[in-house]
Amino acid sequence: MSEFDKFPAAGNGLLDRRIFLRGSLVGGTSLLTARAVATTRESWMRSPGAPMDEIGEPSPHEAHVKRTNVRSTTGTTGTGVSFTPHEHLDGIITPSRLHFERHHSGIPDIDPDAHRLIIYGLVERPLSFSLDTLSRYPMISRINFLECSGNSGSCLAPDPIQAPLSFYHGLVAGSEWGGVPLSALLDEVGVKPEAKWIVADGADSPVMNRSVPLDKAFDDAIIALYQNGERLRPSNGYPMRLFLPGWEGNMSVKWLRTIKVVDQPAMSKDETSKYSDLQPDGSSQLFTFPMGVKSLIRSPSHGMSLDEPGVYQISGIAWSGHGGVRRVEVSADGGKTWADAALDDTVLSKNLTCFRSAWRWDGSPSTIMSRATDDKGHVQPTRDSIIADRSVGNFYHYNGIQAWRVGKQGEVTHVYA
Amino acid sequence: MSEFDKFPAAGNGLLDRRIFLRGSLVGGTSLLTARAVATTRESWMRSPGAPMDEIGEPSPHEAHVKRTNVRSTTGTTGTGVSFTPHEHLDGIITPSRLHFERHHSGIPDIDPDAHRLIIYGLVERPLSFSLDTLSRYPMISRINFLECSGNSGSCLAPDPIQAPLSFYHGLVAGSEWGGVPLSALLDEVGVKPEAKWIVADGADSPVMNRSVPLDKAFDDAIIALYQNGERLRPSNGYPMRLFLPGWEGNMSVKWLRTIKVVDQPAMSKDETSKYSDLQPDGSSQLFTFPMGVKSLIRSPSHGMSLDEPGVYQISGIAWSGHGGVRRVEVSADGGKTWADAALDDTVLSKNLTCFRSAWRWDGSPSTIMSRATDDKGHVQPTRDSIIADRSVGNFYHYNGIQAWRVGKQGEVTHVYA
Repeated sequence: MSEFDKFPAAGNGLLDRRIFLRGSLVGGTSLLTARAVATTRESWMRSPGAPMDEIGEPSPHEAHVKRTNVRSTTGTTGTGVSFTPHEHLDGIITPSRLHFERHHSGIPDIDPDAHRLIIYGLVERPLSFSLDTLSRYPMISRINFLECSGNSGSCLAPDPIQAPLSFYHGLVAGSEWGGVPLSALLDEVGVKPEAKWIVADGADSPVMNRSVPLDKAFDDAIIALYQNGERLRPSNGYPMRLFLPGWEGNMSVKWLRTIKVVDQPAMSKDETSKYSDLQPDGSSQLFTFPMGVKSLIRSPSHGMSLDEPGVYQISGIAWSGHGGVRRVEVSADGGKTWADAALDDTVLSKNLTCFRSAWRWDGSPSTIMSRATDDKGHVQPTRDSIIADRSVGNFYHYNGIQAWRVGKQGEVTHVYA
Repeated sequence: MSEFDKFPAAGNGLLDRRIFLRGSLVGGTSLLTARAVATTRESWMRSPGAPMDEIGEPSPHEAHVKRTNVRSTTGTTGTGVSFTPHEHLDGIITPSRLHFERHHSGIPDIDPDAHRLIIYGLVERPLSFSLDTLSRYPMISRINFLECSGNSGSCLAPDPIQAPLSFYHGLVAGSEWGGVPLSALLDEVGVKPEAKWIVADGADSPVMNRSVPLDKAFDDAIIALYQNGERLRPSNGYPMRLFLPGWEGNMSVKWLRTIKVVDQPAMSKDETSKYSDLQPDGSSQLFTFPMGVKSLIRSPSHGMSLDEPGVYQISGIAWSGHGGVRRVEVSADGGKTWADAALDDTVLSKNLTCFRSAWRWDGSPSTIMSRATDDKGHVQPTRDSIIADRSVGNFYHYNGIQAWRVGKQGEVTHVYA
């Protein structure tokens, strides 16, 4: 009886999570002459290497790892998207250089010394804050995901798109976000009793804006100045953005310039014609704020290939806008049976969580899937149930279970299952 | 009675941590014409901005944020250091492009397809692992600090160095590290009963090596393949490095090529002539593995300036190689009185933790300091006590309390206090 057989956990070769704490999985190449190999020297060991530098760069061997699907609306250069290449990544932090983009009219070149944040409206005293003034306030830093409402929407296409996963799931990323709690600034301006919402405006040319309930503004909203340890990058709102943990990405208004305290939402273009959910009866549901519980197998995924039958890691990310991830299950038989995946140690609220399963592929065609449950009890739905709940033409807030098919030759494709 | 006076916590204007949950700290510029300002348009709002791109870059306005103190031993280009510019950073993640460097003969240009990890010595079957083979093993990803044993050693100089803090504290950084637990690979090769240590060799030209007790290798050591979500960068060991959470940085051997399982340490150059601690009796203490509990005020620090009397954030990072940070205290009167700083939510074992205090500077010269305590009860020592415990000429493993002097004009300098 092998190690694998001692811990059967689900159908079709999926192994118990305890296997993660054991060896005997893959096996390196046996080496009868290890000592001889260890004392040889590769070409790069025969002379000194490259010097230290002021700015570090990735390896040239990794030049293929870049944002995908960079595209603009016809006639524009800055109205569009670029996607995070999750098929090449592992972990809960997304490198800032690879963070997805969604801009409504390009990235403004803002002079940080001239930029001001203005808070006005239903307040006792409107105030203007420079970057220097904001930096004197107590800050807070947290690791949170950011997901565009439109992420994965193309999984509603009649046929599964055959492309790397980032082409349909690349509008989510995880970062450390640091800045001033918005509650501190609202206390400064003195919010009037009749106030119920804020409206946040960006300093981009279309003045992208969104309305945010005052409760969220006082809860965990921050004026973000830092991302992953350094100042925000221009594509993420330099020099400052609103950041609303767990909520649909476009509400975390980039290049934040004004916050108007009001008694009702603005009903702006980006909260009525866009980012709303068409219901089966033809009505439109506005204001879907928290992003739903979701998971995604990053490896193996479309375009990868398993070399031979044997044990492989199934790994991916899960997240929920409602809180933390409690559980991720994996299936290797198209959803007939499921087994708990192991979660990495760092499970943070409203953030990406890594999951891992060991899977012994026997060489026959198999369908692998993951299903996340958050700490509020929400379970990731199937694609079919989402389609049943919404109208044709609905696009936003898609969080259905993703399936990959491993074919006879080990090739991985995108399937609906 | 103002908000501040209600919560006195320590001498010289240091405010209670509860102040962090309130407003009324700094005050923006009052705006009688907020509506008018809000409806004007800055120059960058008058036309579309820059397009999306495959690789994101920092703002040109932040070009001054780069590694500092890039220097090599005379006659070499790759034997030396570069430092993380903590004076410009906030948060627990260090951008990979700014992660400090310490190389012993430059960065080798390794072909990832040709590179192998070889495990041999006191094992049942020596094995060789390619990058592809390693990627099939179950991985784990954690956020941990990495600190060079020599970090801050120049704080033992007779007079305090007057330079930005990174010039003496820039050899520490925080990253997410992802890879295969070394324990899984040791299980594969089958460690013999007489084994007590491993010796890890790098693929750099001097074959930098270190001995690691087998207990640590089986505990939380990993073969790291990923840093901050993407593949390791060349300056951090591409395509793979050993990573030992909490232990002195040079033991996490970069460009890892061989692991020899042995019954005693190698007593190599880098664990005898270097990285050992000279005692008052002239003997040398070898093998100081975990980095001591430590903290550092990043803002305000040398070279910064307070514009005017008023409230400022005192913020910094604390860490311990023994576990998590339990407490950080801050003093604003040169150590006479101390008050607890607030810690950010994300307190992880063997990682950087952010602390923050609010401080009302009254305009008189003041000395600010921070002192960390870890969850094993270790308390950060003073500079004087470290000097008393070691011999003159000792340099490594310095974790003394750092003091900054705020002068009458608000200028901040480095002092010993």
